[in-house]
Amino acid sequence: MRVGVIGYGYWGPNLARNFADHEGSTVSAVADRSPERREAAKRRYPWIAIHEDASALIADPNVDAVAIATPVASHFEVALEAIQNGKHLLIEKPMTTSTERALRLIQEAKSRKLVLMVDHTFVYTGAVRKIHELISEGHLGQIYYYDSVRVNLGLFQSDINVVWDLAVHDLSIIDRVMPNRPTAVAAHAVSHVSGHPENLGYVTLYFADNQVAHLHVNWLAPVKVRTTLIGGRDRMILYDDIEPSEKVKVYDRGAVGAGDRYEMLVKYRYGDMWAPQLDTTEALHFEIAHFIDCVRNGTHPITDGQSGLRVVKILETANHSIRDRGRVVEIDWPELV
Amino acid sequence: MRVGVIGYGYWGPNLARNFADHEGSTVSAVADRSPERREAAKRRYPWIAIHEDASALIADPNVDAVAIATPVASHFEVALEAIQNGKHLLIEKPMTTSTERALRLIQEAKSRKLVLMVDHTFVYTGAVRKIHELISEGHLGQIYYYDSVRVNLGLFQSDINVVWDLAVHDLSIIDRVMPNRPTAVAAHAVSHVSGHPENLGYVTLYFADNQVAHLHVNWLAPVKVRTTLIGGRDRMILYDDIEPSEKVKVYDRGAVGAGDRYEMLVKYRYGDMWAPQLDTTEALHFEIAHFIDCVRNGTHPITDGQSGLRVVKILETANHSIRDRGRVVEIDWPELV
Amino acid sequence: MRVGVIGYGYWGPNLARNFADHEGSTVSAVADRSPERREAAKRRYPWIAIHEDASALIADPNVDAVAIATPVASHFEVALEAIQNGKHLLIEKPMTTSTERALRLIQEAKSRKLVLMVDHTFVYTGAVRKIHELISEGHLGQIYYYDSVRVNLGLFQSDINVVWDLAVHDLSIIDRVMPNRPTAVAAHAVSHVSGHPENLGYVTLYFADNQVAHLHVNWLAPVKVRTTLIGGRDRMILYDDIEPSEKVKVYDRGAVGAGDRYEMLVKYRYGDMWAPQLDTTEALHFEIAHFIDCVRNGTHPITDGQSGLRVVKILETANHSIRDRGRVVEIDWPELV
Amino acid sequence: MRVGVIGYGYWGPNLARNFADHEGSTVSAVADRSPERREAAKRRYPWIAIHEDASALIADPNVDAVAIATPVASHFEVALEAIQNGKHLLIEKPMTTSTERALRLIQEAKSRKLVLMVDHTFVYTGAVRKIHELISEGHLGQIYYYDSVRVNLGLFQSDINVVWDLAVHDLSIIDRVMPNRPTAVAAHAVSHVSGHPENLGYVTLYFADNQVAHLHVNWLAPVKVRTTLIGGRDRMILYDDIEPSEKVKVYDRGAVGAGDRYEMLVKYRYGDMWAPQLDTTEALHFEIAHFIDCVRNGTHPITDGQSGLRVVKILETANHSIRDRGRVVEIDWPELV
Repeated sequence: MRVGVIGYGYWGPNLARNFADHEGSTVSAVADRSPERREAAKRRYPWIAIHEDASALIADPNVDAVAIATPVASHFEVALEAIQNGKHLLIEKPMTTSTERALRLIQEAKSRKLVLMVDHTFVYTGAVRKIHELISEGHLGQIYYYDSVRVNLGLFQSDINVVWDLAVHDLSIIDRVMPNRPTAVAAHAVSHVSGHPENLGYVTLYFADNQVAHLHVNWLAPVKVRTTLIGGRDRMILYDDIEPSEKVKVYDRGAVGAGDRYEMLVKYRYGDMWAPQLDTTEALHFEIAHFIDCVRNGTHPITDGQSGLRVVKILETANHSIRDRGRVVEIDWPELV
Repeated sequence: MRVGVIGYGYWGPNLARNFADHEGSTVSAVADRSPERREAAKRRYPWIAIHEDASALIADPNVDAVAIATPVASHFEVALEAIQNGKHLLIEKPMTTSTERALRLIQEAKSRKLVLMVDHTFVYTGAVRKIHELISEGHLGQIYYYDSVRVNLGLFQSDINVVWDLAVHDLSIIDRVMPNRPTAVAAHAVSHVSGHPENLGYVTLYFADNQVAHLHVNWLAPVKVRTTLIGGRDRMILYDDIEPSEKVKVYDRGAVGAGDRYEMLVKYRYGDMWAPQLDTTEALHFEIAHFIDCVRNGTHPITDGQSGLRVVKILETANHSIRDRGRVVEIDWPELV
Repeated sequence: MRVGVIGYGYWGPNLARNFADHEGSTVSAVADRSPERREAAKRRYPWIAIHEDASALIADPNVDAVAIATPVASHFEVALEAIQNGKHLLIEKPMTTSTERALRLIQEAKSRKLVLMVDHTFVYTGAVRKIHELISEGHLGQIYYYDSVRVNLGLFQSDINVVWDLAVHDLSIIDRVMPNRPTAVAAHAVSHVSGHPENLGYVTLYFADNQVAHLHVNWLAPVKVRTTLIGGRDRMILYDDIEPSEKVKVYDRGAVGAGDRYEMLVKYRYGDMWAPQLDTTEALHFEIAHFIDCVRNGTHPITDGQSGLRVVKILETANHSIRDRGRVVEIDWPELV
Repeated sequence: MRVGVIGYGYWGPNLARNFADHEGSTVSAVADRSPERREAAKRRYPWIAIHEDASALIADPNVDAVAIATPVASHFEVALEAIQNGKHLLIEKPMTTSTERALRLIQEAKSRKLVLMVDHTFVYTGAVRKIHELISEGHLGQIYYYDSVRVNLGLFQSDINVVWDLAVHDLSIIDRVMPNRPTAVAAHAVSHVSGHPENLGYVTLYFADNQVAHLHVNWLAPVKVRTTLIGGRDRMILYDDIEPSEKVKVYDRGAVGAGDRYEMLVKYRYGDMWAPQLDTTEALHFEIAHFIDCVRNGTHPITDGQSGLRVVKILETANHSIRDRGRVVEIDWPELV
């Protein structure tokens, strides 16, 4: 499979390196508007085609699949052209700037029987794969909450706010591991640097049965934190992505026997903690193997267009809530999803 | 100063021990409705008066001041009686179940020139005293946000929800260290144990100038977390109350020079971290010395009735917001405060 | 059981409190040479006998058992007198200043059928009890090494060096959990504060079969560290006594299949980590219940005089090695042990 | 500067990448005996010369400098040939298997005025550069001790023991930051995997004035630890290389005023902790810039041949001590050093 990479800024080089290293694929072309980035790609892969224009890459008959790592605003246009030229597609997250556009891409890819996969990288990490396994096999029992803190001092984006930049990771994980879809969103976000998008955000997702998810994202925190708590009736998970080795800890703890009608005392169960050994394969390597398998064997992508669309739908609804001062906004799920 | 302690459950013994150990005070009486607790007090202080009834203790002429550590529902009645009997008062947090009642206590104590102090213990810790000093001396510059996580597997209360139980600590700290008062509150809270108060809550406080505070409180978390981030324009604080020695870390980091109109790039400043040595005196010992000083010398309490009232006002407003599904509710500050 | 506590300095109050709180015992007397300490004991236990002189306490017919928490230099004399007066004995660690004296105490207690127990407190912690269980049930397989770091900025002793002060804890744990006794000791220690005992020490214990134990003890470290690694062929333990909740972690890791004669490659096994829930009872409470059981029911103490003697023997041998510049010194185990 | 890299196993690719990326150098050739590794080098740098034999690379006139990353046993032979062919040299640590050979290389390079630099990478990290600065500027006062733990579950070597593999890092750091050279060594090491070199070692270095250094190295530990304590009279350092951001912490703590002749009490000073922001440049990038500067401008290398020799001398002496069961062995420093 010959892959063309469009966008060679922060993430594109990782995509290119993984496609180049994988035995099932090669990088045959790179496109980027910046001369410096094209120069960087040329130094690293002197033998491949380097384009200024995405359209030229898309038109290249030596390209079977396209990976799009441009700013989100251009995803739709580039992706649509790639699909219409018969290319399979791996597209950065968030998939598009609107659900409408995401739906259009899904339909176009479907009608041409092309693979459309969204690069929700975290879904392919050993940690999230293990969490998905634990939840789907019922080890946590009924899920009570999902709480994530994703903060650091970092990379203000000029075109999207911190929710679209950072919460997108958690939303893609939630989309994978939570048994239900959220029904409503409330979000608060503020900007502390004049003229820039919101750099601090809190997003609450409502589900059926009192299940709740909450995300804290922040570009102006003094330290890097990547901590997720998942509370279930039977067990609870602490997922710390900064931890070098024991990223996922499973606690056999909880509340038990809330007492009878007369003695409303809640008691606690304190059991062992267990940190399963995780697959340490680079997530992108694992993901690209899956993408190749989807193209070759017709396997359905785990992070398909619909998952991309669902994440965009929640981001869109969060933006509505932010503009409405944190009001709870119901998610109007489109039929296709 | 002879002190009577009303309520000898979880916190009362700590109050009694500290009043007993302090050279400026003695414990002269304890009251509790439970025979087991009265027995425990008798074993520990065989020589003092032990009462079943709070009123008997309050009537005791050998009691100069009363410390109230009963459930919050009874604070008002007991406190009012104590004030009306001319006793100085140290009262557990939250001060009362309503601002109306808090206001009444303030007025009664004021008219009798009695000390009314609320036991916002955290305010007297070495950590919070240092944070107050750093902020009030301007080391952080303009404050952007205050973000706290206070979760553990613990002690469900049957009469109050997790916001009243845990967020009260953060609200008392915020009341002390933040330069302004919040103007509005949005709060989400859910109960996962049928028939019990909410065990998981998220509270957002709005201030002027895009300042925001956010509290995450949870009785059903697998691990104990006590982490606060305070972001300022010039410096930021990480306050981790679990850390045995370096609880307060000050980071000389932030966003700088947000670029001109054409180059909207935010840059970052990465400077040193500094962990000031903190006073390790037990907070309650420090607080009780302050209480004795207030009674003896007419010093005004740091955590006076107004501070107790302000915290209750925010808790009350948070409850309104919870009942209204997280809607932002303006805080209607009473005139006195 | 009526207990007299001799020595009311740092540790004595803890012994007194635990004997007072336990339903199977009472504190009936305290002795200390210091008027301030006697005053402190009187404030806390106004109803008991307070002596200046240990002999007066020992002569008291209202004392069934004696707990000795004086400096180590006086242990022998006080203990001998107590035994000769028919008192059961709980004696602080290190048991004595020499093996000769330890042997004498053991023989005297034996001939009078009195309980002689050494207060190796760590042996009674939930953590060490769990480690003992794991090792004795074979979960670690053959033991390779025991490595401990026990350092802090703290309490220089004037009469004993850091090895006798801190390594005694590790030696008591090793005596409990390691399947064999060490055969030789090498120890290095230096003093950095003129006129004071050694404040930094490294002790290596040799066992049969290439088993080794190593202790790093230090009174002049900037931070407190209490970390022990125990390596076994099948599993390994990380025991961190500073950790608030997960003190003992068991790793299913190791070297496997060291390859054949031609391919001398060592491979590794990376399995899960598991942190068993530990009994959080205060160690001294657990230990005192055991002491009472020994006195009442003739149970043999886990930390009997022989264990105290073995620890003193290793400390003695370590001092020989230190004086001989770290030379490996064989341990000449006495016959009784 | 055109660089040839000999040895393309674990470390060689890092050397090649850094020489390729640096604007002052290019990679012009790679040599390795393994066909797979030659293939890997070819895939990555299709345009350069790939040799099976080191001699062919050394003979190449398009090579100005040679970086040697082969197993230590071959360092001497390859390095000597390179020097004799007029190539500047960057050589992996440990420099050679004996001081004799190290001396010979130093003399050969000196007589030909060639740069001979040893790749003591850690010396060029932001952390060690900061520690060197702090110590050399006197911030710690008189140094008391250097204590390092460097353990993990890892890469058994078949040709050298754990001391030569891991302690070499600490010895290179000690050579850089400690104000004096050690005068004697005592080392204990054991093998737990039959037929393999020692996998667990303890090395004690003696200096003048009661200064001591101690290294714990272990290939069979369940977790990775990289912690160094450096105690000085005025300040102390905790250097944790696993910490993502605050690797170096400086504590303003110590023992003070050891009391007068009669009151031999040691008191303590507890001051602030300070974590200086470190240069996060990749150490190898910084080091290679220095190597290029040495070749071009005649700057003397920080980690010159003598530093390589000193480290080998200590390793050699440690091996003597291990074979003599931990006896303290004086270091017989050669005159040149």
